Parts: sequence; structure tokens; C-alpha cells
Amino acid sequence: MTNITELTLEERASLTSGADFWTTKAVDRLGVASIMMTDGPHGLRKQSGATDHLGLAGSVPATCFPPAVALASTWDAELAERVGEALGVESAIEDVAVILGPGINIKRSPLCGRNFEYLSEDPLVAGVLGSALVRGIQSQGVGASLKHFAANNQETDRMRASSDVDPRTLREIYLRAFERVVTGEQPWTVMCSYNRINGVYASEDPWLLTGVLRGEWGFEGLVVSDWGAVNDRVVGLPAGLDLEMPSSGGRTDAQLVAAVREQRLSEAALDLAASRVLDLVAKAGRRPAVAGSLDVDAHHMLAREAAGRGMVLLKNDGGLLPLRAGASLAVIGEFARTPRYQGAGSSLINPTRLDPALDALAADAEVTFAPGFTLDGTGDAASLRAEAVAAAAAAEVVVVFLGLPALEESEGYDRTHIDLPAVQLETLAAVHAANPNVIVVLSNGGVVALPFRDDVPAILEGWLLGQAGGTATADVLFGRVNPSGRLAETIPLRLEDNPSYGSFPGEFGHVRYGEGILVGYRGYDARGLDVAFPFGHGLSYTTFSYSDPSAVVTADGDVDVTVLLTNTGTVAGREVVQVYVGREESAVQRPPRALAGFASVELAPGQSRSVTVRVERRDLAYWDVRVDRWVVEPGAYTFEVGASSRDLCGSVAVALEGDLVVLPISLNSTIGELADHPAAGAMARQILAVLDQAGDGAAEMMASVPIGRIATFPGMPITLEQVRELIDTANSDLA
Amino acid sequence: MTNITELTLEERASLTSGADFWTTKAVDRLGVASIMMTDGPHGLRKQSGATDHLGLAGSVPATCFPPAVALASTWDAELAERVGEALGVESAIEDVAVILGPGINIKRSPLCGRNFEYLSEDPLVAGVLGSALVRGIQSQGVGASLKHFAANNQETDRMRASSDVDPRTLREIYLRAFERVVTGEQPWTVMCSYNRINGVYASEDPWLLTGVLRGEWGFEGLVVSDWGAVNDRVVGLPAGLDLEMPSSGGRTDAQLVAAVREQRLSEAALDLAASRVLDLVAKAGRRPAVAGSLDVDAHHMLAREAAGRGMVLLKNDGGLLPLRAGASLAVIGEFARTPRYQGAGSSLINPTRLDPALDALAADAEVTFAPGFTLDGTGDAASLRAEAVAAAAAAEVVVVFLGLPALEESEGYDRTHIDLPAVQLETLAAVHAANPNVIVVLSNGGVVALPFRDDVPAILEGWLLGQAGGTATADVLFGRVNPSGRLAETIPLRLEDNPSYGSFPGEFGHVRYGEGILVGYRGYDARGLDVAFPFGHGLSYTTFSYSDPSAVVTADGDVDVTVLLTNTGTVAGREVVQVYVGREESAVQRPPRALAGFASVELAPGQSRSVTVRVERRDLAYWDVRVDRWVVEPGAYTFEVGASSRDLCGSVAVALEGDLVVLPISLNSTIGELADHPAAGAMARQILAVLDQAGDGAAEMMASVPIGRIATFPGMPITLEQVRELIDTANSDLA
Repeated sequence: MTNITELTLEERASLTSGADFWTTKAVDRLGVASIMMTDGPHGLRKQSGATDHLGLAGSVPATCFPPAVALASTWDAELAERVGEALGVESAIEDVAVILGPGINIKRSPLCGRNFEYLSEDPLVAGVLGSALVRGIQSQGVGASLKHFAANNQETDRMRASSDVDPRTLREIYLRAFERVVTGEQPWTVMCSYNRINGVYASEDPWLLTGVLRGEWGFEGLVVSDWGAVNDRVVGLPAGLDLEMPSSGGRTDAQLVAAVREQRLSEAALDLAASRVLDLVAKAGRRPAVAGSLDVDAHHMLAREAAGRGMVLLKNDGGLLPLRAGASLAVIGEFARTPRYQGAGSSLINPTRLDPALDALAADAEVTFAPGFTLDGTGDAASLRAEAVAAAAAAEVVVVFLGLPALEESEGYDRTHIDLPAVQLETLAAVHAANPNVIVVLSNGGVVALPFRDDVPAILEGWLLGQAGGTATADVLFGRVNPSGRLAETIPLRLEDNPSYGSFPGEFGHVRYGEGILVGYRGYDARGLDVAFPFGHGLSYTTFSYSDPSAVVTADGDVDVTVLLTNTGTVAGREVVQVYVGREESAVQRPPRALAGFASVELAPGQSRSVTVRVERRDLAYWDVRVDRWVVEPGAYTFEVGASSRDLCGSVAVALEGDLVVLPISLNSTIGELADHPAAGAMARQILAVLDQAGDGAAEMMASVPIGRIATFPGMPITLEQVRELIDTANSDLA
Repeated sequence: MTNITELTLEERASLTSGADFWTTKAVDRLGVASIMMTDGPHGLRKQSGATDHLGLAGSVPATCFPPAVALASTWDAELAERVGEALGVESAIEDVAVILGPGINIKRSPLCGRNFEYLSEDPLVAGVLGSALVRGIQSQGVGASLKHFAANNQETDRMRASSDVDPRTLREIYLRAFERVVTGEQPWTVMCSYNRINGVYASEDPWLLTGVLRGEWGFEGLVVSDWGAVNDRVVGLPAGLDLEMPSSGGRTDAQLVAAVREQRLSEAALDLAASRVLDLVAKAGRRPAVAGSLDVDAHHMLAREAAGRGMVLLKNDGGLLPLRAGASLAVIGEFARTPRYQGAGSSLINPTRLDPALDALAADAEVTFAPGFTLDGTGDAASLRAEAVAAAAAAEVVVVFLGLPALEESEGYDRTHIDLPAVQLETLAAVHAANPNVIVVLSNGGVVALPFRDDVPAILEGWLLGQAGGTATADVLFGRVNPSGRLAETIPLRLEDNPSYGSFPGEFGHVRYGEGILVGYRGYDARGLDVAFPFGHGLSYTTFSYSDPSAVVTADGDVDVTVLLTNTGTVAGREVVQVYVGREESAVQRPPRALAGFASVELAPGQSRSVTVRVERRDLAYWDVRVDRWVVEPGAYTFEVGASSRDLCGSVAVALEGDLVVLPISLNSTIGELADHPAAGAMARQILAVLDQAGDGAAEMMASVPIGRIATFPGMPITLEQVRELIDTANSDLA
């Protein structure tokens, strides 16, 4: 590998920004190659021919796997890893060194225009699935780019808005998944986000890019800017931003050179960034040779498998599903013919194939199709509706495809409501009046309100399913695939119930993360709000029973929660066993329950299996702002086991040893805090006794007064100097 | 008046802290007197004899007026001013220079232990009523102390917790009432609070105590510390803390002297603080001589009037109230015999008299009393209940007195729930089963949940009513006083619905003001939550109709909203006409409605009156964080007129001229922002046209990208240098 000292200052600077939209700069005289990075968390988006000015136009065909929203709903790391492997294979075939994904930002609000690219409202799901994707991609000698680091949870004013987040929330919710993936998988690159965090650009934040990412998590790879995220490179580079993308036309490289020459920038910082680029180029150079071209069929089949597994059966009253082969079906809704299968923006894939659901259903049943509405709202709504009603009235069962038209959600802007278009709801109501046997199939990247949920007997949440989604939908509707998807995000009754409502998306460059750690189901549960469908929910064509929950603490301090799971139905099926943790008493705020572990398990009819879910000790810790580290509180933890966050089938309590937090006492320690202190307690109690003379409740009222304040009040039984001495003694005893 | 230059350095320092718990230091050689300050927003609490170590023990008798919670429910500035005058008179008689009130902090959470001392969840109500109290007190040559400045909205960890509040919320909600009182009334003193604000102790915050308070609001008085609020005087004094209370025994004076000598503290800063103390002493010396002693009867009658006006009739189904004189009454509940009439802590008054409701009711009716429960939970609940049920069964009507025992709410700590004691609810249920004609009368400083609200026919919210509360309760129950109190705070259905739920009271020294400006009814309305009784609610024994709402903009830019109000019932009554403002479209977040003005109006039966409510232009402004000032947006404002925030009887829209906000454009201006700009629009549109080539939606996706970023992308039609020039030209055109 090229040694950094062989490069001129200009060459070193040049390495730290792109050559064009997608590639790094070569240094030909030393044999340093240019490598390519391309978009695409759910498929490769390698531009073909000349790039346009945003790198958004036509790309080479690639398999469009289900976007993150659907993949996450599988709750299955093994499957996600296989998808990751396929992404790696396709990247390798196209000589792409780094694929720009996965995106693991937390879905703070249902309104975020990019939610379809993100995994979950829960950091454990996002971290576990994100890890699997990185593992899969990198198994092929291709680098992942973990993005968007960090606290990038909205599109509104995304280039400037400061995510104003308190430190505990940042650690437990918004950085948690990143921490898991970085520490576990060492992604080749991490992509810093556009936004600011507590006023500092992510691309210029030494605390984030160096202190936390490298210092605390041990990241060894390269930090690349999101495309256009550089504000000031001379500030960003020493903060930990190694590579600017896309090209600045040499402008910012020259700024770096000048800054080094003028001693405004440390040469060592530049060398470090350049050497990380060299490392990345070298890593890319070690990728094994590719055997053969893309196996379009195999990858299409994997896309179909993942799509089938990502669909979530929200409701199935009266066993309307699965459908009988050969049934008489009315298929209603333009989405059946014109699938919405991925989101808009930088992740837009040019698919190798595309399976509309209508074609797939027609292979299994007697189908009459009516579009029912148009996607752009044009056309004669009344006649489209009448046609749909007629088809529905004549059919045995009606499958209505509803969803969000593409322009309603995209990278670059957020939604302002979560409603389906009124024209679609009106068509549904008319069709349902004509034939009550209605199955609604949804196509949407972000969560939508389901005002019809109590009326229609069956709802299948299809999200965006990638290129094989239509076939996969037929697989599920006809029972070839028994649905096992689970909600990785809550479907609320109303947008106003969302915990971020009222603070999302902020204004004038600031967004207050007002709900703190109570994001997603944590918040709905804390406020005791009803939801349409809870986090973790998803039905099957079979039924499962849970019994005998138990737990043991492992030698490492992790907790193995075991439950006996039985398939009590008549068909094989897959259950996602979920373990939630809660504490009755805690020194810190806790949500009623937080996901602590999960396992996807397949069982034959009648089969029982003892399922053990490993809960890692680190996932039981809270971020203690007093000592700036993760702390496991001592005492009893309750582990609830169930099929969703609101379908809990049993619980088991475990007592855990806590992490020791030794805080020195000080003049700022309160009388109440000190009353039980081994060294200072006598003093505190002496003061409380004097306070008690002031009347009923006086001592209780004064318990929150710092010792250093009360000691200065007139007539106290102890001087400030004596308090100081006692504190010194008490603290030296601890040391 | 003594000139500051006549004082030695030590004398100047000595003036800036107390001599003891309640007085300032004299300088005898120069004839500088010592003056006294005492507690008591709702009555004088002047300690008698030797003070205890907290200044909490026995005090001279004084009239206990209704605490702030009840006084604010009158929504009547004229009445509050008369109470303020009486407080001033009592202070003058006792030679008290400054009375430590009013407390005008916003009731952010129902849990705050000190809510009984505060006025409202709304800054207009708090500001208008607080102004009236200050005006009344100071009319007697006695100083008020406006407290607790600022953002002191909880008791939990009150000496250390940092109220972490965004600037707009701080200005619009938490500083707003202070701004109104300071600018309008010039209180002699402002008391800085214990807590920190965004990490800085209020007692050490130059932005708060000097920049905002004096620089922006023109405060001319003295800033005194809350008792024990000084953290570091050498930091606090130059920040704007003039007087430390209570005495530090000379310790901190010596610190100031040393700091001046060592040039760590500017002598001018010390002189300024000392001269403000001299000013205050001089002001106090100008108080007119007092004629005569306390007129106990007259002040008791005023306390009775205010108490009668502060009660809020929440519900009165079937006209159960008013009671018929001579009716057969069962009076249930220990509170009838042992009134809870004020809160615990520094505001505890030693009343000149005390009227239990039981005695007052017995003068009007045939009364059978049963305590029903004990206040401390001792005693045989079953037999107490049986006795109550027997009394209820034998009576025509049952009046049940429920409430919070004194230890459940106090200065010094917060509640953790809003429930009445279970034993009381059980007694109520039993009594109600025996006799459905139940009137519940409540005694509580903080809001309580009312799970029985749908069952019982009548509920009278009595808050804490001061020493004449019992007589006043009889006045209202028997119709001698027609109730006209209105809720100055929402009564929620559940604590979990409160906007601050989940972020109150914080942990480890920080409390996040997560709900932002959506405090109180603003938040309930924004989330569309049902409440038990809404802000502004209160019934009367008569009825009112509203018609013909209209509005005119005055020459000063204020808005006069006029409505024709008619007493449509058969008895005289008082209505509080409320005007709320909202905007359909706004560049900033707005609550659905915010109180903008109100008027308390008395009408004879059948009488009509055209009522005009002045809405001040300043109350239509939002705090613009881009320019750090109040800004009135141009355009249409909707003024809703009604009897409560959820009983709106009409609305009128007015178009207002806005305040000009000229912001220079910059490299950070987004393409979207610039598209309509007179000078830079052409450039922005040129770029958008290029972006459009990248595909559908690309331009929309990129609208939020700053011009300085996009100009550096490869292939853009304009260079960064050209953008810079254009920006300079555009901004110079504006200048």
C-alpha cells in the first residue's frame, strides 16, 4: 500500500475529496486507484453513461430488493444478511467499492419523507437489522456506508436544521443503532449527515466523528460526507470528516492546502484523513475477482422471498385470508397494475424486472380488475368508482390496493399528514358497501392512518416491496407464504398522538426533540394511548401459544429469556418472539417497556420449541449523564415476552447486579441525598433536626436544598468550613 | 439620599446582603436604615419574636386572602388590585418595606407543588393579574417582589435543576408575564429564582438579570435573590443580582471585597448593586405614615369577596344549585369542619380569623354533618363512611367536601399524581349511592382528576380560598354570590394528557421543556385531546348569549374585539368574555388558539351590553429567533370570542399589517427560499431548471439545499464566486 509520505501535500489533499459524483481521485504516479461509491440501500444505483448534475438520472439495471421499511418488518437478521450479500454481489459485479447504505436513522415521526429508507422506530431493531445488512454486504469484499450519522430524522430543512437533543436521548435512541453496527460490524465507511446536532454540523463535529465514533466505539474505517454535506472543510477535516463527496472541483482541496501552509490546519490531520482514503482504496483492491455476471433470476427470487416476509398482516377477521386458489376476485386499485415498489430520491433503483400484483393474482384466481382511482387524481372519479363497485359486487372477494402516490413521500421533503388520498378512501367505502369481503393491501413507505380498520375484515400492510412485490403479495394472499412480518413502527390512530407531534419538524433551523426517549411505542405506551396497530404486531395464518417463561443470567451478565412456543394451528408458520424489558422502580425515567431482544422462529403445525432470546446486558443500560457512560442499575428487571408490544404472553423478573456509580459528594449535594450517606449522614441529619423546629413539613420542604447553601443560613449547627472538611473526608474515604 | 461615594468598600459590600433573615443592613453612621422584607403573596407573613433558622415559624396575625390559584380564577384585575392594596396596607402597618410576591410562574404541570401560589397556565392571565397585584401593593408605598424569575416551574430539585427551554418558548410562555408586569408596573424588586436556565443559575445569569430585565424591559428596581438562591456571589453580582437574602453572616460580603481588591470584580458593579439597595431603602423611607391599625373586619370581608369570586362552578346539572335557604343538608367531609384554605411553605399565613364552611352552612340550612373520612387517613373508614351515608340518605341535598390534605402539596416538592385520596372517592361513591343529589366542593391547590365528574350533578371547585373561604362557599352555594370564577388552568382527564408529561420534572439536574410553546390548553388543543374541564370554563346561575362579534384595528395597531353580551337568565351575573387568537397559515408554529384578551362584566337579568376587549398588538407577536425580537406576522388573524377556550360563540377575522423582517440572503439560503427573491430569483430558477433534468421530483427534492452547497456541485450553471457576487448585490440593494 502507498505510504502517505510518498504523496505531496496537494496529492494528500486531493485524495480527501471526490473526482466526480461517484469516484475518488486516483494518484496515477503512485498507482493509487480511483474507487466508486454508489447509492442504494435496497439495490445498486450505479449511474450509466454521463452523470447528470445531481447523479440522479438513469442507472444500470439492478435488483430492487424491498426497501428498508419492508425488510425491517421481517425482524429477521438472517434474511437481511442474505439481502446484504446479494447487494454486495451486485456491487462487486459492477466494480463498485462501497454501496451507500444501510440507512438506520430512527423513525421519529411518521412524517419523515425518508422513512421508507429507514428501518424502525426502535434502536434495537434498527441496529440488529442494520448490522445484518452490513455483514452481508461486506462479506463480498464490498464496503457498506452506514448512514446518516446522526440524528437525521427529517427532511425539512435537512441541510441546516439543528436536531436539538438531550444527551441521554441522543445516546439511547439516536446513536444506539449506530453504536451497535459500528462496534459489531466495522462498516468500511460511515456517512455523516447534512443536519446539525445541538447547533454543530454533523460534518464538523469532533465529538461525534472522532470522540464517540472512534474514541468510544473504536471505528476504524472512513467517514464520508453525505453528498453536499460539507459546510467548511477546514473545520470538518480535523473534526473527523475524511472524504468529501461529491467533487468540489478542487476548490476545497486548495482550501486545505492553504490552511496547512498557513498553519490553520494540522498537517497530521490531513495525513490521517488521506491515509484513511488510501486504506479504503486498498481494501477495495483486495476484493476477490467476481465469477460471472448477475444471476437475475436468483436475485429476483430473493427479492420475492424478502417481500413476502416483509408484509404485515394487520387484520384477518373471519379467516378471509388466505384466499382459495381459483377464487373469484375483484382486484381494485391502480396500484395492483402500477406497483409502487420503492421510494423516490437517491435510492431509486432501475429494476431488472417488475412484477405487478395484478399479473400474479390473475395466475391464481378468476380476476376482474378495476383501477378504482388514478394515482395523480386525474380522471373521472365517479365512473372509475362505479366500475370498481360493479366488479366488487360480482366477485366473491375483493382485494383493494391502496397506497401513497410516489410524490407524496420522498427524500427531500416530509409529509404534513398521514392520510391516504380521499379519492382512495371513497372508492374503498363504495366497494365495501357493495361487497363486505374486502381485503385491503397497502403500498406506502411511511405509516398511514387507517380509518377503515374497524370496517374491513382484512388488511395487509405491504409497504414498498421492491421489484418482486406483486408476486410476493400473491404468495401471501394465497397462503403459499404464511405471513410473518411484524410492525417495526407503530401505526397510530391519529398523527396528533405521535410523541414528536408539536415539535417535529421545528422551525427556523432548529428542531426540538421534545419527547426525549419516549419515541415511538415508548411514547404511546407511556401516555397510555390507544393505537391502530402496535409496534411488533403482525398476524399469521396459524396461531401460537407461549408458556413457561423463564430467565437466567449468563456468565457475561446477559440474560437468556426462554419461553415454550407452540404452533397451535394447522399450518406451518413463523413467529417473532419479542422480549421487552421494564423496571417498576428506577432512578431514571423509563418507558413502560423497551424491546430487549427478539427471535424469528419457524414451527410446523403442532410443533413446540423452547425459544431462548438473548438479552445483552448492554441493552439494559441507561446513559447516565452524571458520569457520561452506560450504567446498568442494580435490582429487579421485568422481562415481558409476547407477540407484540401490546400482546404480552408472560413475564419473568430477574435481579441484576448493577454497575457501580461512585459520585463524590459536594457542596451541591442536597440534605436529602446526604441523609443516608455513610460519612456525611450524621451532619445532614443534624441539620434536618434543626430544620424540623421550623414546623410541620419544613424538613421535607428543605430536603432538596444543597448542603453548601443551607450551611450558610443564619443559625445552622455547622459552618461551611466544617461542611467542606467533612466532604473532603467523605470523598477521600471513597477513593 | 446617601451618595454611594460616602460609603467604604466594606459598607458597600455589606449593603448587598441581608442583616438576618428578613432585613437589610443599616449603615448607622450615614443614616442608612435597615428595611424589612417578608413573605406572603396572599397575606403578610411577618415573623414574630425570634426567627427560627428557616424563617418559617410563627408570624403576626394577618388577613389570609385567597392564594393565587383562587384569585386568578376571578379573571378580574380590578379585584386583584384591591387585594393588592390590602396587602400593601397590612405591610405598611407592620412597617414592612417589601412583600415577597406575587408569584407569576406558569403552571407547566399540574404536579408542581407550588401551583397554589401561581396564577395560571397562560401568560396573559398571569401577567394581567400579576400586574394588578403589584399595582395594588405599590399604591400603598410598599414594594412588590415579582417572583420567581424565571422558568421556575417545579419544586423537584429546585435548587439545582436546569430548565432547558428553547428561546421562543422562554419568551412567549415563561418570560411573557414577567415582561408585562415589569414594563407596565415597575415592581420595586424582582426575585431571581433558585433554578438554572439552560445551564446557568438564574442568580448568575447576566442575559436574564441585566440584558433582558433591564436592557430590554427597562427594569429600574432591585434584584433580590430567592432565599438561599446565591451560588457564587462574585459571579452573581455583576450578572445583575443586587441583594443576597438571607444573611450570609458577612461571608459573601467579604468575598466581594476581596474580589474587588484583587480586580476579579469591577468596583463599578458593586457600586451599582449597592446604590440600588440605597434606592430601595430610600423608596421605603418615602412611604406615607400609616393611619390607624388593621381593620380586620374590612379585610376579612374583602377576603370573603375574593373567595366567592374565585370559586369555579364546574358543573350544575338540573339546577341543583343554588340551594334553597333552610334546605335539609347533609354536609360530608372533614374539610367542611377543618378547612384547607392555604398552601404550605413560605407563604403560610397566620390568619386573623378562620371561617369553616360547616359553620357558615349551618347558618343557612338544616345541617347534619359527618366527616366521612379523616385527613391523615387514620380512623375507621368504614364507620366514618356509614355515618356519612346515613346522613346523606336522610337529607334533601348532600354537600361533599373533598380535597387534598395539606401534606400532599407544598412548596419544596412536587406531586407524583393528581388523584384525590382513595378514601375520599370511596366515601363520595357511597354517599352518592345513598342520595343522588350530590354537590362536590373541592379544596385543592393543584388540579385534581375528577373521575366522578359524569356521575355527580354538581361540582364547585373551591381551590384554596383563604380565611373567609367557608363563608364564601356558603355565599355561592346559597346564591348570595352568583359564581363567576373561570378556570385559569385546564383540568385534564388524565395526568398523562398533560403536555409536559414525560419531560416533567426531569432527572439529574435537567428538565427538558419538551412541549415547547404548547403549554396547558395550547397543548391539549393542539393534540385534540378531550379534557375534564377546559381552560376558561366556569358556570353561572344565569345564562349569557353572545352576538355580533366585530373587530377594529386601533390607531396604535391594537385590535378592539366587540361582542354584544346579554344576560338571558333570571338573576344578575358576571361573565368573563374571552377572546382567543389563531392563524390559519403561519410561518411559525401556532397553537390552535391563544388567549389574547378578556373582560369581566356584570349584567342584570335581561341586560345587554356591547363589550369591547382590547387585544394589544404585542400579544399577537411571536418571538422570532432569527432576529431575536417580537414580530407580528402580516395577514389574517382570527379572533374567537367565547365563554371558555372550548365554548366559542363567534369569531371575526382581521387583516393586520406585519412587522418588517429583513433578512440578508446568504450562501446558506436555500434554492427554495431564493426562487421568489427579487434579486437572486433568476439564479435560483436557473439552477432549478438544471436540477429538473435529473428526473421527476428532483427539483422539489433539492429545494432545501443551500445555494452555497449546490453551486459547488459538479456541472452547475453558476460558480460559487458568481453566487457570492449576486448575494452581495442583493443584500446591498436591501440596505
